Amino acid sequence: VVQLTEVQENLDKGEHRHYMIKEIFEQPSVIQNTLHGRISEDRILEESFGAEARDIFDKVEQIKIIACGTSFHAATVAKYWFEEWAGITCTVEIASEYRYRKVTTAPNTLFVTISQSGETADTLAALSKAKKLNYLASLAVCNVPNSSLVRESDIAFMTHAGTEIGVASTKAFTTQLVALQLLVIAIGRRYEITEEREAKLVKQLHSLPRLCEQLLALNNDILEMSHAFTEKHHTLFLGRGVHYPIALEGALKLKEISYIHAEAYPAGELKHGPLALIDSDMPVVAVAPNNELLEKLKSNLEEVQARGGKLFVFADKDAGFKDDGQTTVLNIPHCEESISPIIYTLPLQLLSYHVAVNKGTDVDQPRNLAKSVTVE
Amino acid sequence: VVQLTEVQENLDKGEHRHYMIKEIFEQPSVIQNTLHGRISEDRILEESFGAEARDIFDKVEQIKIIACGTSFHAATVAKYWFEEWAGITCTVEIASEYRYRKVTTAPNTLFVTISQSGETADTLAALSKAKKLNYLASLAVCNVPNSSLVRESDIAFMTHAGTEIGVASTKAFTTQLVALQLLVIAIGRRYEITEEREAKLVKQLHSLPRLCEQLLALNNDILEMSHAFTEKHHTLFLGRGVHYPIALEGALKLKEISYIHAEAYPAGELKHGPLALIDSDMPVVAVAPNNELLEKLKSNLEEVQARGGKLFVFADKDAGFKDDGQTTVLNIPHCEESISPIIYTLPLQLLSYHVAVNKGTDVDQPRNLAKSVTVE
Repeated sequence: VVQLTEVQENLDKGEHRHYMIKEIFEQPSVIQNTLHGRISEDRILEESFGAEARDIFDKVEQIKIIACGTSFHAATVAKYWFEEWAGITCTVEIASEYRYRKVTTAPNTLFVTISQSGETADTLAALSKAKKLNYLASLAVCNVPNSSLVRESDIAFMTHAGTEIGVASTKAFTTQLVALQLLVIAIGRRYEITEEREAKLVKQLHSLPRLCEQLLALNNDILEMSHAFTEKHHTLFLGRGVHYPIALEGALKLKEISYIHAEAYPAGELKHGPLALIDSDMPVVAVAPNNELLEKLKSNLEEVQARGGKLFVFADKDAGFKDDGQTTVLNIPHCEESISPIIYTLPLQLLSYHVAVNKGTDVDQPRNLAKSVTVE
Repeated sequence: VVQLTEVQENLDKGEHRHYMIKEIFEQPSVIQNTLHGRISEDRILEESFGAEARDIFDKVEQIKIIACGTSFHAATVAKYWFEEWAGITCTVEIASEYRYRKVTTAPNTLFVTISQSGETADTLAALSKAKKLNYLASLAVCNVPNSSLVRESDIAFMTHAGTEIGVASTKAFTTQLVALQLLVIAIGRRYEITEEREAKLVKQLHSLPRLCEQLLALNNDILEMSHAFTEKHHTLFLGRGVHYPIALEGALKLKEISYIHAEAYPAGELKHGPLALIDSDMPVVAVAPNNELLEKLKSNLEEVQARGGKLFVFADKDAGFKDDGQTTVLNIPHCEESISPIIYTLPLQLLSYHVAVNKGTDVDQPRNLAKSVTVE
């Protein structure tokens, strides 16, 4: 059955110049696949995490998530969700760090790993270590059925993103975020997520594919914006709260395929050092949804402007940013806070893609990198 | 009494060209001050945390540390120590993130804040938030007596680093590390730190000032090494485990005063993206004590070399690194693992100082930065 599915999948680039852009544009449909059969009109179907999931979830008191690279950024988003929505303590850690240190474990902690390939060496080693500790159970969020990670975990959730060929992960990341949100809701039901809240969250999930389509329609605007980065050697990405890991992921994409030294900071940390770097050669990208942190973010960005930094703001259309000589604004359709980390990822992916194409790098096979890091 | 102390302190630069280098060279003596009266020959004197400390420490089950910038790096070192040495769960978080999100708290958690000035706005706001939650008690690690943070915390530990004038924190950071190590031992006694282990750790602390002197004697070698960075626009800092936050701090110093875009990574994450950045324009600094992670680090560094990256390794003299055209090695006197994060900080401070002097920046008053970030 698995093979049949693979044969049916469209594995050529079709009309697209690179696998990466094909995969970015597949996101509305693969997110639909991730959701398919996993949600009803207003509920998460928690059996999609496996037959044993219900018994395990009944016992969960804490969450530990281990991952590398892009998957680690997905984990960090999930930490905010678990604590904010469900009141469940969640800690996240990079697999190569976790595997070599003495760690503490709390009772009834679910050990979650995230890996597109399911063959990431450090993540597999972390799982192997965790099995010797007193975790409640292990859950893999993965895109490849029958991968080592899936086989060695107690339960697994397949992201159904389809084969990802571009080395820089795109659709694998957003489908991981969807998968993790389903997990947060499934476990969070037993904590602070009420039936009413769940219905609202699920409604937003249903709207995701359509919203992603709207974001992808901004492709030409982002292409235009991308020229400002082509000759730059640095970029700073800023976000706050749950959008800080989205800034991290935006910076990683630009690093990976355009070789621009991009770094992300939680915007509140600017004054504690990185502000010294800001001048007209350091473009600053900000992720600015219209949430309760907007005014704080604006005041951080004013400092960047006062120091001559050029701003590129991905902002909710109602956030009140003005496009002028020093600030370029890309208006993002309004979306609810619960799905906005997923939505804001798409324009950042497109930005890094266009910058890399402008620079003429090997987008799908960036130098020095492998698709699955199967060695330590 | 406080005023008298301040009058007696030597607040001019003396023989030094900048406050920063004066403060770097003060570290052997101020670390002595931090330790003075706080340790006996083989024991921590836990009353130095205040009269109420004993009762509080008896109840501690978890630690939460909140800080910004350099102080956050000290917090991250302490996390490794708490979990590795004492088996006590410790979570660390940036103050500007903590203050604006809904957090979970575990029973009997000690809430620790770290700030040189005790006036850092985000850290004060985090403390104010924490006081409304069910933490066991609050402890400030601070350098300024009677600062807001000290006044508003239940107990405080003064680092006794003396006035720090250079905006880029140096002696405040290493004395914070010493203070945190005393805290780890004081609480850890009640967990996995045996009397024998404590005696060994205290013995190493006694050796710190002399070892710091030995490190400072490498100043001319580091000055020589610094010329390789003067014309560069980027640097990558690598470390693993407890030396990863030291790499973060090394990168922050270079950012702050030399305006070079430096970024730190846990070495195991290289393959998950940043390796794409490596070429001959991106020097890579590695913190390489002779510990159990050395062989892993070496294999990470071989990948850097294979891609044309120039390596600058701060390595234990027995670590077996060879100085050649592509790798520059600075041999660090052997020191025990327990104090090595403190020791390895010094050469990184000196490196950033000399690079900044070579570049002619305003070392003590770097552009865009303030000494105490008293606004949000």
